Amino acid sequence: MRVDSRLDSQSTEATVTVPDLLERGRTLCTPLLREAVGRLAAPMDTVAAYHFGWIDRDGRPSSGDGGKAVRPALALLSAQAVGADPQTGAAGGAAVELVHNFSLLHDDLMDGDETRRHRATAWTVFGPAQAILAGDALFALATEVLLDAPDGSAIQASAAARAVRRITVATRKLIDGQAQDLSFEHRDRVTVEECLEMEGNKTGALLACASSIGAVLAGADDRTADALERYGYHLGLAFQAVDDLLGIWGATEVTGKPHWGDLRQRKKSLPVSAALAEGGKASLRLAELLADPEGRGHEDEEQLAVRAALIEEAGGRAWTQDEARRCHQTALAALDEVPMPDAVRRHFVALAEFVVVRER
Amino acid sequence: MRVDSRLDSQSTEATVTVPDLLERGRTLCTPLLREAVGRLAAPMDTVAAYHFGWIDRDGRPSSGDGGKAVRPALALLSAQAVGADPQTGAAGGAAVELVHNFSLLHDDLMDGDETRRHRATAWTVFGPAQAILAGDALFALATEVLLDAPDGSAIQASAAARAVRRITVATRKLIDGQAQDLSFEHRDRVTVEECLEMEGNKTGALLACASSIGAVLAGADDRTADALERYGYHLGLAFQAVDDLLGIWGATEVTGKPHWGDLRQRKKSLPVSAALAEGGKASLRLAELLADPEGRGHEDEEQLAVRAALIEEAGGRAWTQDEARRCHQTALAALDEVPMPDAVRRHFVALAEFVVVRER
Repeated sequence: MRVDSRLDSQSTEATVTVPDLLERGRTLCTPLLREAVGRLAAPMDTVAAYHFGWIDRDGRPSSGDGGKAVRPALALLSAQAVGADPQTGAAGGAAVELVHNFSLLHDDLMDGDETRRHRATAWTVFGPAQAILAGDALFALATEVLLDAPDGSAIQASAAARAVRRITVATRKLIDGQAQDLSFEHRDRVTVEECLEMEGNKTGALLACASSIGAVLAGADDRTADALERYGYHLGLAFQAVDDLLGIWGATEVTGKPHWGDLRQRKKSLPVSAALAEGGKASLRLAELLADPEGRGHEDEEQLAVRAALIEEAGGRAWTQDEARRCHQTALAALDEVPMPDAVRRHFVALAEFVVVRER
Repeated sequence: MRVDSRLDSQSTEATVTVPDLLERGRTLCTPLLREAVGRLAAPMDTVAAYHFGWIDRDGRPSSGDGGKAVRPALALLSAQAVGADPQTGAAGGAAVELVHNFSLLHDDLMDGDETRRHRATAWTVFGPAQAILAGDALFALATEVLLDAPDGSAIQASAAARAVRRITVATRKLIDGQAQDLSFEHRDRVTVEECLEMEGNKTGALLACASSIGAVLAGADDRTADALERYGYHLGLAFQAVDDLLGIWGATEVTGKPHWGDLRQRKKSLPVSAALAEGGKASLRLAELLADPEGRGHEDEEQLAVRAALIEEAGGRAWTQDEARRCHQTALAALDEVPMPDAVRRHFVALAEFVVVRER
């Protein structure tokens, strides 16, 4: 199936841009997503379609923002990395997107978030129970989509089973990561190692799966799949380090999130953990402020600015910037372990740049 | 592996009782469940272990009530139905039990239930977020347990993939059923067909999977697996019909549930739907009472007794009793489609009797 001949053509592959890759991911994976969601009984199908932005709260068709679709783009590329056509990775891209949206439906409820992608979150529209169930259903559909092998051959069935196994383990890690993140809220400090483990679980594991699942579906061996997973895992860690920096120092007008947002929520992010680990004067003062139950949750702008300055003075900001760079480099180095067409490698590099280098 | 030689021995197979079958299910499946739950990171492992009754709320070992374990017993029997040893079905029994407990963790939260198996529900002890995540994690583990084939042969891998596919579809139906059940709460009436569809999804689908998954893991063909699924599906419908009867007319001292419990909750159960469909004088009076917004949720004992009497007068009780018998018979008839050892068939029949004929 040739959906976008421009991307299949060897001669113009060099001119493909990141928006092209993202668009291709959407084009090949969205039909599978819609078909899968169409299997759900009422009212689950409505909740899921609303969450994906396909309908508005009154059931009218909508062209809502379905997210950046980085994961589908990576899944298609990973099929190409082992010489298959992008279409081979489409079921993997759809499955990863289903798991991602399963976690968003549950996380929005657990975190009490009322908006996502500039729309009211599903739980605020349909109630908590339907949001939980819709998430559960998307998780089930992810497995189904992978096992709906187009021709049902034994080779494809075995590749699909391997893909299911990898995405299931990744999903369990994602769940572990969210549980760790929530449990950190009740602690005054977490170590840098704990924070990295949580972020690797919460963000790294599914990006790792997205970056390898197309190759797995194309029958790649475990060594190749593992190398592609390392690319995605470190890409996830780099993304998360940048996210942690933006959560404190990101400009509100760019991120759309409140100033000092993560400090206000007392989030145990990387800059905070690294600053607390440093142990110098600013580090100790920061620890005192964070452990003080007085005024908790009611800090004013000035108090939050003091904390941000202490984190910076204790080296938390610089350490996290270095960590983002290190992870970005480790991700790119993993690509060198897999022989792949130059154009595909350049696309992986361009997507990594897109994911890591950003202001929001 | 011979865990219980008494059950493997052909000569004494005839003396095996239902408690023996349930105990064997627990004995073979619990180690797999514990191993799976042990893979979870803290704090998820604690939440799951508490839910299964292995530890108390302070983390001390406990021998809590883990449920009747009917599903594991069925999974082992279904392996024996196609000539395999019970152990072949153990991963299937563990997987079905993980899915069942995933749904209990989420349902207890959605329904606001504060006790289960005489203990505080997980969400009341660890909070809603951890209960949601623990449920999600058990769902993931169900797939993992099936794909952890002991010898990794191609035949086993293909059988495991087929088992994953069946349990995933069953889980999606279970989720659909819970969503339908919740959506019925906001309606004055549902048809008998809608009620049967909901109950088939919520209870039938997973019992169907439990009754066939051992055979699927043993390499049975789809025709055999489908026949065993029909047994389990109708067993589920019969169980649910009896549950609906007990929900209205069950003796509180036996069920442990409040008198007229389902009527108090205005549950759209089978006796109610059947009575409303009848259309006679009692049926119309019942419809009036149920549609009346006045005093909703504050009905006294006497008002509830009037409703129970109207349901009975309109034939709702008798119809549901007949339906339970019909489904029980249909379940047993499905067994005749599968050639299996006589002793195995007798055990299936005994388990069906155990599931359907009960007072609580």
